Amino acid sequence: MQPSWPDSDPAIHAVPATPMPPTIRPATQNDSPAIWRILEPTIRAGETYPLPRDMPRDSALAYWHAPTHEVFVAEENTEILGTYYIRPNQSGGGAHIANCGYMTAPQATGRGIARAMCHHSLQHAREKNYRAIQFNFVVATNTRAIALWHSCGFQTLTRLPAAFHHPTAGYVDALVMFQIL
Amino acid sequence: MQPSWPDSDPAIHAVPATPMPPTIRPATQNDSPAIWRILEPTIRAGETYPLPRDMPRDSALAYWHAPTHEVFVAEENTEILGTYYIRPNQSGGGAHIANCGYMTAPQATGRGIARAMCHHSLQHAREKNYRAIQFNFVVATNTRAIALWHSCGFQTLTRLPAAFHHPTAGYVDALVMFQIL
Repeated sequence: MQPSWPDSDPAIHAVPATPMPPTIRPATQNDSPAIWRILEPTIRAGETYPLPRDMPRDSALAYWHAPTHEVFVAEENTEILGTYYIRPNQSGGGAHIANCGYMTAPQATGRGIARAMCHHSLQHAREKNYRAIQFNFVVATNTRAIALWHSCGFQTLTRLPAAFHHPTAGYVDALVMFQIL
Repeated sequence: MQPSWPDSDPAIHAVPATPMPPTIRPATQNDSPAIWRILEPTIRAGETYPLPRDMPRDSALAYWHAPTHEVFVAEENTEILGTYYIRPNQSGGGAHIANCGYMTAPQATGRGIARAMCHHSLQHAREKNYRAIQFNFVVATNTRAIALWHSCGFQTLTRLPAAFHHPTAGYVDALVMFQIL
């Protein structure tokens, strides 16, 4: 008699193909090597964040973990595949609006990591009594991200004309996006 | 015979009433007490800048003189009546757009100090090869400033809804203003 392999179980085949959402948790000091493995290729490419392409590791991690930032990581099976920060976009009378930055590991794009982080950040922002989230600088050529943020409920408030110098596309607009919570 | 007072000289009466423009020069370490005398009442009022109203002197001066900022002062007869900073609004691919903050001493409002500083900043930005100046957060109730920036060539790109908590007016919009150089 043939063994009954689990994948021959119709109940298992009924599980939808959608990947499990990643676990999202606060970053710890121990996560820095994994976070840098995500930041480095994004910063070096210079296509989506207005950061110096030659930014050193320590500066990049200090920027990501700035004192006003809360940093989270998204992991699947103990592998960190994404990271995001949330912070007040301004201080004083502007501190009720949050700002976030999200990065996904290059090998993990298209698996819903950024969407999961965005949903987490919206929930976290509500818990922290932020009244809105503002993205200050979404590069217009980053159409995948713009479509994702729209699908997560963000609106484009304006385009900053020629505000980003893209390494291959030249001067392109950057979008200010906003979502009231 | 009556002495001939200078103000009886018709040549003096022919001088237009417009005040002389202030001298604008880079700030030095010695200017910190004068700069703080300008920053303090603006920050304590909490009506125009998204900064903590109880921000201590050292933090405020460190913010104004942040490493990426160039700071100028406007003076008349050795009295400092205004100060502004100019900086890249973003780094990396966004560093060609400048951002400025201007403050005028309360006793000197209405004398053209802010306008003179704005004109100076536009000229300085051109000299530094910035391609535009962006104001990220002009509080909508600050109608005097908004009218001034418009008259200096800035356009409003968008209003950030309820982005500023004004101490008496409650939640009010903030404007993103922009001028291509």
